[in-house]
Amino acid sequence: MQNFADKLIEAIKEKGNPCIIGLDPRMELIPQAFFSESEDKTKNELIEDSIFEWAECIIDKIKDLVPAVKFQSAFYEQYGVPGMWAMKRAISYAKSAGLLVVVDAKRNDIGSTAEAYANAFIGRTKIIDTEDPIFDADCVTVSPFLGRDSLIPFVDACKKYGKGIFILVKTSNPGSGDFQDIKNEQGEPLYTVLAKIVAELGNDLVGTHGYSSVGAVVGATHPEEAQILRTMMPKAFFLVPGYGAQGGTASDTLPCFNADHMGALVHSARNITFTHADQNISKNEYGYFVRENVEKMVADVTAVLK
Amino acid sequence: MQNFADKLIEAIKEKGNPCIIGLDPRMELIPQAFFSESEDKTKNELIEDSIFEWAECIIDKIKDLVPAVKFQSAFYEQYGVPGMWAMKRAISYAKSAGLLVVVDAKRNDIGSTAEAYANAFIGRTKIIDTEDPIFDADCVTVSPFLGRDSLIPFVDACKKYGKGIFILVKTSNPGSGDFQDIKNEQGEPLYTVLAKIVAELGNDLVGTHGYSSVGAVVGATHPEEAQILRTMMPKAFFLVPGYGAQGGTASDTLPCFNADHMGALVHSARNITFTHADQNISKNEYGYFVRENVEKMVADVTAVLK
Repeated sequence: MQNFADKLIEAIKEKGNPCIIGLDPRMELIPQAFFSESEDKTKNELIEDSIFEWAECIIDKIKDLVPAVKFQSAFYEQYGVPGMWAMKRAISYAKSAGLLVVVDAKRNDIGSTAEAYANAFIGRTKIIDTEDPIFDADCVTVSPFLGRDSLIPFVDACKKYGKGIFILVKTSNPGSGDFQDIKNEQGEPLYTVLAKIVAELGNDLVGTHGYSSVGAVVGATHPEEAQILRTMMPKAFFLVPGYGAQGGTASDTLPCFNADHMGALVHSARNITFTHADQNISKNEYGYFVRENVEKMVADVTAVLK
Repeated sequence: MQNFADKLIEAIKEKGNPCIIGLDPRMELIPQAFFSESEDKTKNELIEDSIFEWAECIIDKIKDLVPAVKFQSAFYEQYGVPGMWAMKRAISYAKSAGLLVVVDAKRNDIGSTAEAYANAFIGRTKIIDTEDPIFDADCVTVSPFLGRDSLIPFVDACKKYGKGIFILVKTSNPGSGDFQDIKNEQGEPLYTVLAKIVAELGNDLVGTHGYSSVGAVVGATHPEEAQILRTMMPKAFFLVPGYGAQGGTASDTLPCFNADHMGALVHSARNITFTHADQNISKNEYGYFVRENVEKMVADVTAVLK
């Protein structure tokens, strides 16, 4: 079974860039055309199909451009179970289109409950007489708040199923410092305490290209902290939110890369998918809008890596 | 609109105890009888119906005994979308049976994403031309790792919809100390830094009985820390995991209560729902098993409160 980090590096090399596009539905911003052929559907079918078809359209238009897509589970969960069906179908569609899939669920809990979340997103669940994959993403984001023991079931699932995780270390929001920057009695901020654990947990999951399937979430909005974290976790892949809508520039993401210009995935969502002004454009016009935004992002990010 | 903490206190007074029962499905432990009438169902229908009917059976048998039930979302998510349907149906059924419903989802994210999670569990989502409740629990558990700003959308939803949250402060697992006990330069552990924020955020949501709808998760496995936290958050309700299967006793939960013997909800799940030895018992026999376990827990917890 291939290591997730190896798959990721090969996908980045094939596509020539480390961009990951967030497919995060907001129904009020999805063009009308995705709701059009739906007069005989129930409301739940309309929700599920319109969100899935929106994601499908984007995947079709950008699958040759980027190595991976990210699904923010909150934006699907807010549409309830039909939203979750749409996410499941879109994950499967993205994978069949050759894209790697990260589910940004920031899940965690303790003991057997953490194991249940790992089963749901990157593992398998025993259902009657079979073990079935559930959402079956390639990778999921995980919160470390509950402690090192809560991370183990996810690391185990990575080993067993060739999957990956990104552990929250330093998030991109203004309030990220409230707890993540708290310094312990040795003067180390929590995010560096976390970095050590991420590096240690990742040791068993280093692939043939030298990177581990246990990665870290490090916001582009904190380039100084990113520099420190890059040194502390040389083998970890960074998932880098904060580029674009949150104010991070391509240059701000540079400290998240190693000297080999590898080791980071730069993420953007609403600046890619929701920049159209006219809700009445066709699906095809919308798709090209999104493709153009991805092309601009790819050019911007790869320019600073040269 | 009634304040969540007021509803909770009234329910506790009516039932005469502060016990909350966790309905966390593990298919391999659910008696065969819940899978029996299902030969013409698809696998997804079988998953959804068997889990829902299991929850329904328990709710019917215990609804007169306790004020609230808790759904651990991980155990539903591990069964994928059919599991989520079962959870949604069970939440609705529990509410119609007069029970308050906590969803233990430990969700959070930043900005508009935190808002999407709040919409999903305790708020409403704009869907085409209506604003719809989604999972519509009375209360959800929230992770504070991303910072104070990430908690605001949940507090706002509590105000708008008469709902509640429990913010993770000191969890019950062995590794909880890894990050939650880190002491800042003033010598304050992270859990007390969090306690101050919980108290502050809860100020606007204090009901007529003197308690706030912004509560805290504090494990029964840490009675000394609970004592400190009780003093720091006098108006916060505590959701107290760790009783029973995790080794906490009824006496260990005492520091989580105020002098009025109010202010804490004591939780148990697998020690209530999965103590039967025989998988071939009838639904009715199983229900009485669960009821007996709840009666024992109620007697145990109320004894120390006298």
